Amino acid sequence: MRVKIHGKVKNFRTVWYENGTVNLIDQRKLPYKFEIYRTRDFRDTASAIGNMIVRGAPAIGATAAFGMAQAAFRFKGNDMEKFKEYMKNAADLFRKTRPTAHDLFYAINLMDEIIEESNSVGEAKYLLKKKSQEYADKSAEMCKRIGKIGEKLISNNDRILTHCNAGALGCVDYGTALSVIRFARYNNKDIFVFVDETRPRCQGSKLTAWELEQEGIRYRIIADNAAGYYMQNSEIDLVIVGADRIAINGDIANKIGTYEKAVLAKENSIPFYVAAPESTIDISCKSGVDIEIEYRDEDEVLYISGMNESGKFTKVRISPFESKARNPAFDVTPAKYITGIITERGIYKPEEIKGEYSL
Amino acid sequence: MRVKIHGKVKNFRTVWYENGTVNLIDQRKLPYKFEIYRTRDFRDTASAIGNMIVRGAPAIGATAAFGMAQAAFRFKGNDMEKFKEYMKNAADLFRKTRPTAHDLFYAINLMDEIIEESNSVGEAKYLLKKKSQEYADKSAEMCKRIGKIGEKLISNNDRILTHCNAGALGCVDYGTALSVIRFARYNNKDIFVFVDETRPRCQGSKLTAWELEQEGIRYRIIADNAAGYYMQNSEIDLVIVGADRIAINGDIANKIGTYEKAVLAKENSIPFYVAAPESTIDISCKSGVDIEIEYRDEDEVLYISGMNESGKFTKVRISPFESKARNPAFDVTPAKYITGIITERGIYKPEEIKGEYSL
Repeated sequence: MRVKIHGKVKNFRTVWYENGTVNLIDQRKLPYKFEIYRTRDFRDTASAIGNMIVRGAPAIGATAAFGMAQAAFRFKGNDMEKFKEYMKNAADLFRKTRPTAHDLFYAINLMDEIIEESNSVGEAKYLLKKKSQEYADKSAEMCKRIGKIGEKLISNNDRILTHCNAGALGCVDYGTALSVIRFARYNNKDIFVFVDETRPRCQGSKLTAWELEQEGIRYRIIADNAAGYYMQNSEIDLVIVGADRIAINGDIANKIGTYEKAVLAKENSIPFYVAAPESTIDISCKSGVDIEIEYRDEDEVLYISGMNESGKFTKVRISPFESKARNPAFDVTPAKYITGIITERGIYKPEEIKGEYSL
Repeated sequence: MRVKIHGKVKNFRTVWYENGTVNLIDQRKLPYKFEIYRTRDFRDTASAIGNMIVRGAPAIGATAAFGMAQAAFRFKGNDMEKFKEYMKNAADLFRKTRPTAHDLFYAINLMDEIIEESNSVGEAKYLLKKKSQEYADKSAEMCKRIGKIGEKLISNNDRILTHCNAGALGCVDYGTALSVIRFARYNNKDIFVFVDETRPRCQGSKLTAWELEQEGIRYRIIADNAAGYYMQNSEIDLVIVGADRIAINGDIANKIGTYEKAVLAKENSIPFYVAAPESTIDISCKSGVDIEIEYRDEDEVLYISGMNESGKFTKVRISPFESKARNPAFDVTPAKYITGIITERGIYKPEEIKGEYSL
């Protein structure tokens, strides 16, 4: 992704590995400050996942893969048994950082298999480094393809609504919905993005706005309540969002509020697209009703965090002290509201997912 | 409205006049602290309107009416010409406090007429005091009637969604949508309220939640994004909101996000009611397209205010420093999404408004 630093535009990935160092865009500091967080010890890399310096399933997966390579290179000696024991501890450490991140376990298991198949410590080190890099490259490549395929849906002068952050910051690079928007811009289409702030965690106003700012793409943040207003007034040409899970019948789960925007898009005859890698399709999931919705801490609704006038991160209560909240983190958008699903292989109607992926 | 003070429940109006003092529930302190702001000088009363110690059109109207009575009693002597000159200055001061509040001008004009019709300073003082009290009483009475009429729509165990604050705090008492909810509770119906936080100004989480807390009505605050989720999951039985303006064809203007909730209610076959006094019906307004939408300062979206852990009001930035926002404050909900409009005279279908009010 492009990042503006002192007026110059540089290219960054969310996570990368170089000479034993894992480099992470420090997402605790965003959108206020751009800083690279560097770890030379795998234990610090694991902590960085736990502390949400890096977040988003694909980005976490790549960070953990790199962290395993980093761990291997710390090991001294050639005793394969001791090495395996040591790496098992490292793997356990990573597995404990974010207990529900699917990509994390996938990446660690992949690294475990590589160790099992290696005949020496040296070979394992070599392969872990190579495969972790391939893992990250493949993740970035998939997002790039989603962008290149999806951008064909965007016309010059289109005004696009997006919800939450389906961006590069949650992936290794490019993002999913934001990859589509990026490549439309890279192909010189003049576009404008409405960014839903996406309460309660404000990933829209905090992360998506930051990414678009860096890319020089025109955008404005809006309250989630205003998306319908702009659709009703014919100021939105299409909607693109990401997805956390896609059921075989084409229903999708995504950040809370996605369902609302999808219903409003249909009501106003506005195309509604979902961009997500194939790995998001869950063939064990027949329809949206099978998707369990996570409820998160009510404090995400009762409080909000930001930067005060002295430049300090501050949490403020925006509700009565005695009040309580309900906080479903995701919702399910039924297939009937979805115009198309963009994956790295192509653009599918939701009802086509079954034929493409269930066999 | 009921307010819990040290465990005891007392009844309050948002504004009342007593022995030359205007008393206001200090809405700058809510929902964190309940305090009465008292003014003995009409200039302080005008400032209280300007500083938003009191807000909401009906509440502002009553405050200004009381402020005019308060001004009159400060006048010494019997010279009617001097008195009129003095009261004209007072009226001008009130008119400048909130330049777009319809009820403010209505109340001040009413007081002006009383002065014109008075034959002496003494008579004017007597009538201003009497009429300002009648003005406030009538305002409260209308809200009470809306509540009593509307509550018949609510069944025992209903789960109600409301948006923004159509509550007692914006009126002299009871509120509009919240009056309906109050009277359902007063009639011992067991109800539960989903409170949309109502970004950007959070009148739902800050004011509606506070009012429901005081009344002992069960509620939970939700992010505006979650309303659709609960409708989809059959956890909401009906929606009640207020209105800022009602067009003759039954279209209504209300807080931004109302349109979204109305579309979602219709999509999920949930009744959607609007509660508002007849004075909200604008017979010069043929349909919603005639209603101009106010755009407010983008900082309402880019920043948020609340109470920090040290108990201080704090404004925090929740977006990149360079970012911009769009902030439409209201939207228009077309009549086709509205099940019924509750006024102090009865419950009407939106298409009945024309026959009732346009003649």
